[in-house]
Amino acid sequence: MAEISVPESSPFGLDNLPYGVYSAGAAAPRVCVRAGDAVIDLAELLGDDVFAAPSLNPFMAAGPRRWAWARGRIGELIAAGEVPEEAVWDVAAVTMRLPFEVADYVDFYASEHHASNLGRLLRPGAEPLMPNWKHLPAGYHGRAGTVVVSGTGITRPCGQRRGAGEPAPSFGPSARLDIEAELGFVVGVPSPLGAPVPTGAFAEHVFGAVLVNDWSARDIQAWEYAPLGPHLGKSFATSVSPWVVPLAALEAARVPLPGQDPPPLPYLRETSDWGLDIDLVVEWNGEVVSRPPYASMYWSPAQMLAHLTANGASLRTGDLFASGTISGPSRGERGAFIELTWGGAEPVTVKGSARTFLEDGDEVVISATAPGSGGGRIGFGEVRGTIRPAAGWPMAGARGRKMASE
Amino acid sequence: MAEISVPESSPFGLDNLPYGVYSAGAAAPRVCVRAGDAVIDLAELLGDDVFAAPSLNPFMAAGPRRWAWARGRIGELIAAGEVPEEAVWDVAAVTMRLPFEVADYVDFYASEHHASNLGRLLRPGAEPLMPNWKHLPAGYHGRAGTVVVSGTGITRPCGQRRGAGEPAPSFGPSARLDIEAELGFVVGVPSPLGAPVPTGAFAEHVFGAVLVNDWSARDIQAWEYAPLGPHLGKSFATSVSPWVVPLAALEAARVPLPGQDPPPLPYLRETSDWGLDIDLVVEWNGEVVSRPPYASMYWSPAQMLAHLTANGASLRTGDLFASGTISGPSRGERGAFIELTWGGAEPVTVKGSARTFLEDGDEVVISATAPGSGGGRIGFGEVRGTIRPAAGWPMAGARGRKMASE
Repeated sequence: MAEISVPESSPFGLDNLPYGVYSAGAAAPRVCVRAGDAVIDLAELLGDDVFAAPSLNPFMAAGPRRWAWARGRIGELIAAGEVPEEAVWDVAAVTMRLPFEVADYVDFYASEHHASNLGRLLRPGAEPLMPNWKHLPAGYHGRAGTVVVSGTGITRPCGQRRGAGEPAPSFGPSARLDIEAELGFVVGVPSPLGAPVPTGAFAEHVFGAVLVNDWSARDIQAWEYAPLGPHLGKSFATSVSPWVVPLAALEAARVPLPGQDPPPLPYLRETSDWGLDIDLVVEWNGEVVSRPPYASMYWSPAQMLAHLTANGASLRTGDLFASGTISGPSRGERGAFIELTWGGAEPVTVKGSARTFLEDGDEVVISATAPGSGGGRIGFGEVRGTIRPAAGWPMAGARGRKMASE
Repeated sequence: MAEISVPESSPFGLDNLPYGVYSAGAAAPRVCVRAGDAVIDLAELLGDDVFAAPSLNPFMAAGPRRWAWARGRIGELIAAGEVPEEAVWDVAAVTMRLPFEVADYVDFYASEHHASNLGRLLRPGAEPLMPNWKHLPAGYHGRAGTVVVSGTGITRPCGQRRGAGEPAPSFGPSARLDIEAELGFVVGVPSPLGAPVPTGAFAEHVFGAVLVNDWSARDIQAWEYAPLGPHLGKSFATSVSPWVVPLAALEAARVPLPGQDPPPLPYLRETSDWGLDIDLVVEWNGEVVSRPPYASMYWSPAQMLAHLTANGASLRTGDLFASGTISGPSRGERGAFIELTWGGAEPVTVKGSARTFLEDGDEVVISATAPGSGGGRIGFGEVRGTIRPAAGWPMAGARGRKMASE
């Protein structure tokens, strides 16, 4: 049997136990759990074929009782020192894969501070929030096929954009490439067409949470988004962390929402608190530039799910819905660079140089921690990405400065 | 061997041969082709396991050479009378299933007449078309998980909507339930992340076309759509026809676009014509109310695909992208009831009564034909749906007139 040592201070203690999919060498990817720096193969540990899969989807579909049983049994076996040697890998020795097959991906817009900041930046002089914003958690469908795991290189997208004062759009690399620091929620148990999922049924369907970086090309987005919403400005890549923190690990992080005024319509009222006290950290080339507080979000994930299904839309195993950018009230809490630098007008200092949007070679790492049930803090790990130059545009320069129109 | 009789006038002649997925009795669904009124099991006919699947995806992934080989061989075997008895079913004796697993679903907005009409209706007094409309084929991601096959009942969705002059939104059944008559294109061959698919590579990736009814709750849509685009007003259901007409069957339907001014940016220029001379017919409770002409569309499907991937977004087998509502210049050519009845202000007569939006029990059937290579016309079959009352709202009445706020 292997000795799994989990230091008291580890963000991956027995009160966390996040799930993922790993591969070692040429072996097929399989489901694992993390304890300290150990990655434990769950098909080996529990002898259950639901884990001998290249994604979490079969286990996620099995439902809350099976999730609770597995979590309990994993904790017992680790505590009792009954983990077979052949089930254990060092996290540094394996490759982490996309943990689940994404069915549909919906991105919400649930931070009042973010939505207000974007409103001021994109529609100066008008009311920052749309009239519907405080009545419903606004969201839209993103591209499920371009959700990638942390560490995947992000190629600067090309697209149409029209600069201020330019008579016509041109095509070329985005010059305003940005991040959005978000939390994503992963659906395990599906729901049939025509059956809304009320806020109180949130934990019967949602398996866990991941970190999300919803890369955004602001120049492409600004030109395209009216009237059908964001598309090419987002669909080139969305990165997620490899570890899915189970909902059960977030019990100690549950807090009331900051307050909703006007009170939401009955189908959006919560029966228990699903605000979450999760602290994010955004690092730009190794320097911390922002600390977005999830507890400041206006709409809860249970409300997002209730809204998403209010029209009878069905859920599938692997559906991913994300919070939208997490921004707190102060400048150092903003989860997107367009807000942090106020549209590029107020650069931030990164490693001694003044920066606005992403340059080729830049690396962004988003991490997060939350209170655990053991009295310490549990970790989400990280979602990491490095910007690669636009494909086929070697002359475009690090910021896409040439902006040629082909 | 079975005798397959295909009358000269059949829309399912040997120049069509659309693919689908059928089931008979309790047997597992399998891939088939249609000739006249015969449904032919392709695993039986061709002895190829790629067809012994419950979806077209494995065959669609196999690529254009395999598609061409299969189409040629099917035609030869039927013409030679070499179709085994056990491969043949009467179309009336089988159940047609969703023909493919939908990966991502993108809905475009490619009809100038439709976009102009909607602009006039939703933003009176302003320019009908957005500044970006003639520069790019606008589109957004829809919900892949709620794409259903023709014949699936459509439950009237509930949702938030705010009537003119109302101080706050209420929740209840949509009172402005509408259709959108569209054509959908199905991707067979995937493309890697970071590699745009130029217009000239359209036929290397796209397998075929289906009819689409993109059901739309206009009141929900009008309240929610700014700034992130349509969501709950669309995501309750999108119906597709069970027959996928292969691109090879549409050769005789290819025509130039009506004309694009200004000329599109280089990445959107066509190297050969992908305008399509396809005539749709919309029947409302059995009465023809509109004949939308696909040939009037501003943007071609090859341009839609080039735009969709211009930022490096990858394609997956089963991706579906639809044209958006097809509307011609005259009233009798409008593909949505909001246009046909000018927002409800100009009812149409259906079976003797004045009608605007859909009532419970209404049935809509959209069909289409196109020139075939044999000199006659080939058919797309139909996409059919009947409106069911809103779930849990027995008092709401056929038009959702009560609009209670819970």
